Amino acid sequence: MDSNFSSLSNHNHTPFITPNGFLRPKSMASDPKIVTGAAGYILEDVPHLTDYIPDLPTYPNPLQDNPAYSVVKQYFVHVDDSVPQKVVVHKDGARGVHFRRAGPRQKVYFEADEVKAAIVTCGGLCPGLNTVIRELVCGLHHMYGVKKVLGINGGYRGFYARNTINLTPKSVNDIHKRGGTVLGTSRGGHDTKKIVDSIQDRGVNQVYIIGGDGTQKGAAAIFEEVRRRGLKVSVVGIPKTIDNDIPVIDKSFGFDTAVEEAQRAINAAHVEAESVENGIGVVKLMGRHSGFIAMYATLASRDVDCCLIPESPFYLEGPGGLYEYIEKRLKENGHMVIVIAEGAGQELVSESAQSMSEKDASGNKLLQDVGLWISHKIRDHFAEQKTLPITLKYIDPTYMIRAIPSNASDNVYCTLLAQSAVHGAMAGYTGYTSGLVNGRQTYIPFYRITEKQNYVVITDRMWARLLSSTNQPSFLDTKDDNEEKEEEEPLNELPDGHC
Amino acid sequence: MDSNFSSLSNHNHTPFITPNGFLRPKSMASDPKIVTGAAGYILEDVPHLTDYIPDLPTYPNPLQDNPAYSVVKQYFVHVDDSVPQKVVVHKDGARGVHFRRAGPRQKVYFEADEVKAAIVTCGGLCPGLNTVIRELVCGLHHMYGVKKVLGINGGYRGFYARNTINLTPKSVNDIHKRGGTVLGTSRGGHDTKKIVDSIQDRGVNQVYIIGGDGTQKGAAAIFEEVRRRGLKVSVVGIPKTIDNDIPVIDKSFGFDTAVEEAQRAINAAHVEAESVENGIGVVKLMGRHSGFIAMYATLASRDVDCCLIPESPFYLEGPGGLYEYIEKRLKENGHMVIVIAEGAGQELVSESAQSMSEKDASGNKLLQDVGLWISHKIRDHFAEQKTLPITLKYIDPTYMIRAIPSNASDNVYCTLLAQSAVHGAMAGYTGYTSGLVNGRQTYIPFYRITEKQNYVVITDRMWARLLSSTNQPSFLDTKDDNEEKEEEEPLNELPDGHC
Amino acid sequence: MDSNFSSLSNHNHTPFITPNGFLRPKSMASDPKIVTGAAGYILEDVPHLTDYIPDLPTYPNPLQDNPAYSVVKQYFVHVDDSVPQKVVVHKDGARGVHFRRAGPRQKVYFEADEVKAAIVTCGGLCPGLNTVIRELVCGLHHMYGVKKVLGINGGYRGFYARNTINLTPKSVNDIHKRGGTVLGTSRGGHDTKKIVDSIQDRGVNQVYIIGGDGTQKGAAAIFEEVRRRGLKVSVVGIPKTIDNDIPVIDKSFGFDTAVEEAQRAINAAHVEAESVENGIGVVKLMGRHSGFIAMYATLASRDVDCCLIPESPFYLEGPGGLYEYIEKRLKENGHMVIVIAEGAGQELVSESAQSMSEKDASGNKLLQDVGLWISHKIRDHFAEQKTLPITLKYIDPTYMIRAIPSNASDNVYCTLLAQSAVHGAMAGYTGYTSGLVNGRQTYIPFYRITEKQNYVVITDRMWARLLSSTNQPSFLDTKDDNEEKEEEEPLNELPDGHC
Amino acid sequence: MDSNFSSLSNHNHTPFITPNGFLRPKSMASDPKIVTGAAGYILEDVPHLTDYIPDLPTYPNPLQDNPAYSVVKQYFVHVDDSVPQKVVVHKDGARGVHFRRAGPRQKVYFEADEVKAAIVTCGGLCPGLNTVIRELVCGLHHMYGVKKVLGINGGYRGFYARNTINLTPKSVNDIHKRGGTVLGTSRGGHDTKKIVDSIQDRGVNQVYIIGGDGTQKGAAAIFEEVRRRGLKVSVVGIPKTIDNDIPVIDKSFGFDTAVEEAQRAINAAHVEAESVENGIGVVKLMGRHSGFIAMYATLASRDVDCCLIPESPFYLEGPGGLYEYIEKRLKENGHMVIVIAEGAGQELVSESAQSMSEKDASGNKLLQDVGLWISHKIRDHFAEQKTLPITLKYIDPTYMIRAIPSNASDNVYCTLLAQSAVHGAMAGYTGYTSGLVNGRQTYIPFYRITEKQNYVVITDRMWARLLSSTNQPSFLDTKDDNEEKEEEEPLNELPDGHC
Repeated sequence: MDSNFSSLSNHNHTPFITPNGFLRPKSMASDPKIVTGAAGYILEDVPHLTDYIPDLPTYPNPLQDNPAYSVVKQYFVHVDDSVPQKVVVHKDGARGVHFRRAGPRQKVYFEADEVKAAIVTCGGLCPGLNTVIRELVCGLHHMYGVKKVLGINGGYRGFYARNTINLTPKSVNDIHKRGGTVLGTSRGGHDTKKIVDSIQDRGVNQVYIIGGDGTQKGAAAIFEEVRRRGLKVSVVGIPKTIDNDIPVIDKSFGFDTAVEEAQRAINAAHVEAESVENGIGVVKLMGRHSGFIAMYATLASRDVDCCLIPESPFYLEGPGGLYEYIEKRLKENGHMVIVIAEGAGQELVSESAQSMSEKDASGNKLLQDVGLWISHKIRDHFAEQKTLPITLKYIDPTYMIRAIPSNASDNVYCTLLAQSAVHGAMAGYTGYTSGLVNGRQTYIPFYRITEKQNYVVITDRMWARLLSSTNQPSFLDTKDDNEEKEEEEPLNELPDGHC
Repeated sequence: MDSNFSSLSNHNHTPFITPNGFLRPKSMASDPKIVTGAAGYILEDVPHLTDYIPDLPTYPNPLQDNPAYSVVKQYFVHVDDSVPQKVVVHKDGARGVHFRRAGPRQKVYFEADEVKAAIVTCGGLCPGLNTVIRELVCGLHHMYGVKKVLGINGGYRGFYARNTINLTPKSVNDIHKRGGTVLGTSRGGHDTKKIVDSIQDRGVNQVYIIGGDGTQKGAAAIFEEVRRRGLKVSVVGIPKTIDNDIPVIDKSFGFDTAVEEAQRAINAAHVEAESVENGIGVVKLMGRHSGFIAMYATLASRDVDCCLIPESPFYLEGPGGLYEYIEKRLKENGHMVIVIAEGAGQELVSESAQSMSEKDASGNKLLQDVGLWISHKIRDHFAEQKTLPITLKYIDPTYMIRAIPSNASDNVYCTLLAQSAVHGAMAGYTGYTSGLVNGRQTYIPFYRITEKQNYVVITDRMWARLLSSTNQPSFLDTKDDNEEKEEEEPLNELPDGHC
Repeated sequence: MDSNFSSLSNHNHTPFITPNGFLRPKSMASDPKIVTGAAGYILEDVPHLTDYIPDLPTYPNPLQDNPAYSVVKQYFVHVDDSVPQKVVVHKDGARGVHFRRAGPRQKVYFEADEVKAAIVTCGGLCPGLNTVIRELVCGLHHMYGVKKVLGINGGYRGFYARNTINLTPKSVNDIHKRGGTVLGTSRGGHDTKKIVDSIQDRGVNQVYIIGGDGTQKGAAAIFEEVRRRGLKVSVVGIPKTIDNDIPVIDKSFGFDTAVEEAQRAINAAHVEAESVENGIGVVKLMGRHSGFIAMYATLASRDVDCCLIPESPFYLEGPGGLYEYIEKRLKENGHMVIVIAEGAGQELVSESAQSMSEKDASGNKLLQDVGLWISHKIRDHFAEQKTLPITLKYIDPTYMIRAIPSNASDNVYCTLLAQSAVHGAMAGYTGYTSGLVNGRQTYIPFYRITEKQNYVVITDRMWARLLSSTNQPSFLDTKDDNEEKEEEEPLNELPDGHC
Repeated sequence: MDSNFSSLSNHNHTPFITPNGFLRPKSMASDPKIVTGAAGYILEDVPHLTDYIPDLPTYPNPLQDNPAYSVVKQYFVHVDDSVPQKVVVHKDGARGVHFRRAGPRQKVYFEADEVKAAIVTCGGLCPGLNTVIRELVCGLHHMYGVKKVLGINGGYRGFYARNTINLTPKSVNDIHKRGGTVLGTSRGGHDTKKIVDSIQDRGVNQVYIIGGDGTQKGAAAIFEEVRRRGLKVSVVGIPKTIDNDIPVIDKSFGFDTAVEEAQRAINAAHVEAESVENGIGVVKLMGRHSGFIAMYATLASRDVDCCLIPESPFYLEGPGGLYEYIEKRLKENGHMVIVIAEGAGQELVSESAQSMSEKDASGNKLLQDVGLWISHKIRDHFAEQKTLPITLKYIDPTYMIRAIPSNASDNVYCTLLAQSAVHGAMAGYTGYTSGLVNGRQTYIPFYRITEKQNYVVITDRMWARLLSSTNQPSFLDTKDDNEEKEEEEPLNELPDGHC
């Protein structure tokens, strides 16, 4: 997370370059578009090209002549369709915030021949990247007759430092069966001005940016600069985060696949632990700031005795601490499995070693490997204690999870996400992230995606379910916690049935 | 589907036995409980034991003393929490039908020692059955301290014809890693009176019934009889349908796993077809009346050229027919893959062979194997035609799909479903199906589950997406169709992101 | 198996065209090359180009300048290296038949620039075809500097009826990760004269023919015709038979993968059978004449109660029959799993239905689907009998097994097989099949491969192991059998550790 | 490897306890039993109970009354059956060393009721342990009617420090579907005297010891002590080594499964490397002293650019070094994958860090994690060099490989291995390891298994194939090497077709 991004309330209107190379436009944020209605209804709408370019011509949506769609009723999205952010409601409660429903519109703002689209993937790997790329290309081509689609090579810096790749339905035909991204990726490399120059110079007018929260901030900056220059360019974000740490949306693509694949590592840890006396299996899973993968992988397995995530601080020593719990479980069961998210217990790790100042090229704090650290601590503790000789096996499946192709469920998800993104750009929307809200595709203004991160709310039901399933201690001093967290409310609990 | 079930408007108050052995109580249906609110808000509530047993004592929910839950806020569901059936809304639209949100309540109507629960699985196999059983047992035990849980052996008839099995957290510990159902299952065997006698005789006071729409109808009949007898017994349905043909709910458990596993068969068909000249691969997938698995498996793969489902009639001969399309694809591509749902084209099959009168023990019409039939027809057609020598390979992966264990996503889903079912019964609710609506666990009155089946709406967007991805003909005479289907509206389109 | 092939003892020296289109040369078989040695040592050698073309120049093997090989000792195969066919020996027994060991020779008979190789795949799919193709191309290219490699399209008929495909290390780089064959395949299409004409016209001088026993017979005919014309063309067979029915060799490539994949179907059958009362799961596996896959899949699983193979006749009715055994197992266990090879019980099937006269394009007798047949018979029997209501589920995973990519073990096997084939051709050998004998790559003269088929010897130990593991009846009348089969000896029992 | 074991030529006849707790008997080794025959035939026979206990009664093998075996010819192994160690032979070469063929004998030396068998698993996990346990139990029970089988809990020390577990066909029925070992395991814990005391006290007369080379040495010591005490106890070793470092035998069980599973990690490394500029994927695989898994996994994949094993020393800096090669590959290809066996380059690692003195409880030298070390070195090198900014991802799948269940091929292998072990013990053989030699089950005297380890011979053909497939440098100074290794000969190259 780039903490040096100014908040929405920033009123410094002089453009300048931030330390990260993001160009901050005169007004950082174009104003939110808010529509209100009866019974407390609020629509947080997304920008549109006509917000700053008047008199744009429109064309009938070519889908209506497409044989596949012509027989379909209800195909075009009604102009008033919106999706509520909160779906648990009370009889007389206010209706609250809604987002614009994604999908094809009657009128489009681009002709097929006019479109030159560009696709870029940024940040770490995630199952489904290739499916999204494939479906953007095929969606543009088959639904809207768009022939010119460029792949940007190797992340943001590819806009200005590398050649582009022509993408056609044929060239992307089988890529969804492979892991990784055929476009290549990188961290950082964002230089708003150079990127928008390149967009302008190459004549690109639809930009699809696939990446995590840092990348979406970059997309927001690109959108603002495009808007400042008055360009007819739709800037569309597609949220990619294997950690599921992007707010508002139900879950990110690749998440299901990651949770599924994580089962292999947990099973292996369980088998290793079970086969020796006082065996401990430790599995590190992804989750820099958000423990969703660890939590869901734990819930999906039944072999985990302890799940440690960034949102739930824990401690090692003393009553209620991890060592005590390990000892208890080993005495009861003879073995145990611990799942730890990569960002868990960072405050403990940094106490051990003062090396936390570094950041990677995306501006992410470089974390020490908490899995190695905790394995070492546990081994040392029981070696010193001498009464309980343990055998600990540590497994880090991170890259084996990230690199696999997406499963069937994620493939369908990626398809709808990509098609929704395309429909929005063709309809002239811009400055939005395509995302799933309560099971429906929506367009979400950038600021809602980038303003905070999505966390596991440890005072909510899903975490209680986990605690109940593992029987691990809460590591919380009840009284303190109650006071501290009194006001907290779940930003976006993953809906109950989604995983 | 048992068509001889009377509708809700039935007013025949004399009890009698239906031909299927279902006891129809004096008043078939207890009246729906409807609550209304502002802006067109409607809550379709579920029955409660206190509806017909006054003055039941209540107890504090033992979860509040559970260390895992004690630190958790927002754990108990607010009495007014409800979930809308429609989540795509308009600014000034009516709020419409809602269902009661599932989850633990402050007060429960059973003491731990008092509860004697029974679990039964009916109908065909579906991935996740064992996970649901496991989580019912573990949920009752760990959350509510319930020790007496009986497994009913071999479906409905096990209530009166077989011994029961004691289920404990230990005995179900690893069953979620195995396919099938440890309780055994069967079709039919429903005899309302004998079942309720058995419930009464054994002192069972919570009944969890896992099965498809026929089974849920049976559950409704059991509930009505229990109510008629004034028993303090919660009757809870858990919808199981690999075909996803149960209405209202987002999707059924096991569906994800089935779509994933179906990819193997489609891949094999594709490889076989590709390796010979004019190769055709035909894959039959589950879907007696609803083509969801075929549709989603097709969307998840990219190798399918034609998907045939029960909801979309097709024809073989002549312009716009299947033969013509096959010929076209073979000439363009050299090979093709056809996915066909088991219930597709039954009117064509029955023309060929007049053998459609039989029903299986659950009352399902026995379908002829449409996969064998269509393979035969295609082979014959091209053999007669002589100009295009084809090689056709037919794959029926049905049992290989049904019999696998549920994947991680379905495991989490089954867990929440089972826990929701338990919370509801403990809270005194009865006569409901536990189900996911727009990503949230809810309690749905039986009549909403059994009144119709869920279908793929072929005039809606998801089917259009499919047509667009396969390029197959719509097999529809546009004009006719428009007139015929004018009024149709999707009962329950699977939400966009669910699969 | 083409029964109309004349045996080796055929002395009709007039060339003529057989009904299948194979050109039979004046003398069907060039004479076997037999070398004898001490203690009963016999070497059945393979033909060499110099047998009929005198004074061929030789060249140093380019491998000796290859950096990868230059440091390697023992790389070139000693001219006397041979491998015994029988590896179980007695202290004073005769040493018996040996085959020439495969591998690179000091001298080669082709210069890199001179070679034009052709590769063809014939018959049904088998895991590993693409790996063999890949490694032939890469072996020729990287080891011997051969640049011209043609792929023949769609089986034998591709030699004269289709265009060829240029194969390069780059174009075959990833094909081993895909099932099927990138060259396409077909049955039949053998026309010796046209094929050799095409070989001559295109200037091909190394032909690699991948296929089953019919295909190897075709290869033998091509070799004889090439020899008759005095062409400097090496004709090399690579045995492909998922059924493992080719004699002499340890096992065929793809066999391991097939046995592994078959476990899925057996597991599914087991789960289906276990979940209902008196459940029977029937799985049909490949094995037209040889039951190796069924036998090994049964041994690898532990859930099979009965394995039926072509080599072991069985009967249904009466004491010691299948029905009796089924009834016994259901009464003991409540469920059972039957594995049946596609060629098992054909004499029973043909009694039921007189439709056995047809053959497919390769000349294989068209078998009725024995799986459907036996499922029908069992269902009927118990339906008539009425005392034991069974539920039977039938699974045919054939195409799902054939179409998968080869596993790691088969990948290594295919690599060595392909490299051995290449070394032999470069060294001037011809008219041989490359094959594994007792764990070593060898060159086997065609006649040894085609003279008979490999069968499971049901009076040998592996079948006894199977009987012991399933506890099924032997279906044999002991006395009769002893007399009849007195003289039988295993042609090629799969070595104990191979599967 | 326990280096402090005396060699066979040890003539110290005074018993004493070695530092590891192994009791060394008066004469360390009973003398080898050598039989010679014509043409240089040598049989290295195994001990027999009658060697030191005269006049033991014999009984007819109960298998001959077993219905499964009664119809089978050739079931009993001929007393003269033997299997040659070398299978590549010359016409007039000496026949060389042979081993006794495994299998059932006409006469047995134990009655069913008399047998009390014990099974123990020692050392690290390996796929197939549970299958071996299952088949020992089922083989003893079903073939020989043995009812008393004890499982020793947690490795060697379980003989004297833990309770035993009764093993029955029912209790082991499904264990082959699970990874690990149901008996538990541990390193070390060998105390010959206490173990033989326990054997004597518990009345055990057949001991099956599953473990690696250290364990087999322990088994040899137990055998010698049993012999010294004159006990009628068969001591049988079953070689378990995922590294394949046990000599004589073709390959160890679990090896196939391990090579297969390693493909996942290599694929992931390849995807990660491909997706970024100058991406490097490093995979560490098992192989403390022998690089077989790394070599075969590399050959089975086609995505590895460099494979480093203990047998082939390498260096980092300068011409012909690893850094140079990495730079070359990145410039050519943009990415690369390195597979490194855990024991590779240990001399380099120990130069870096002087911490190599420790040993684990089995006496194995504790190795530093060479994967972390080399990843660190490569990152540092290119960071210092600054011209080529690399991204390196390191994957250690070790425990995910070890902990999976064995695949179908290994299941069959384990079955035959276990059955062979049982046949030998029943026939009165002792002091042997059951093992596969050239595809046939044999009995091998302990000293041949423990005298040295099996290594990849880097001057032989398989390594040349690897070098050729990766194009990596040989890291050898050709001249030096030739001199040094002149005399080396492959102890036991894995046969060509085995993997």
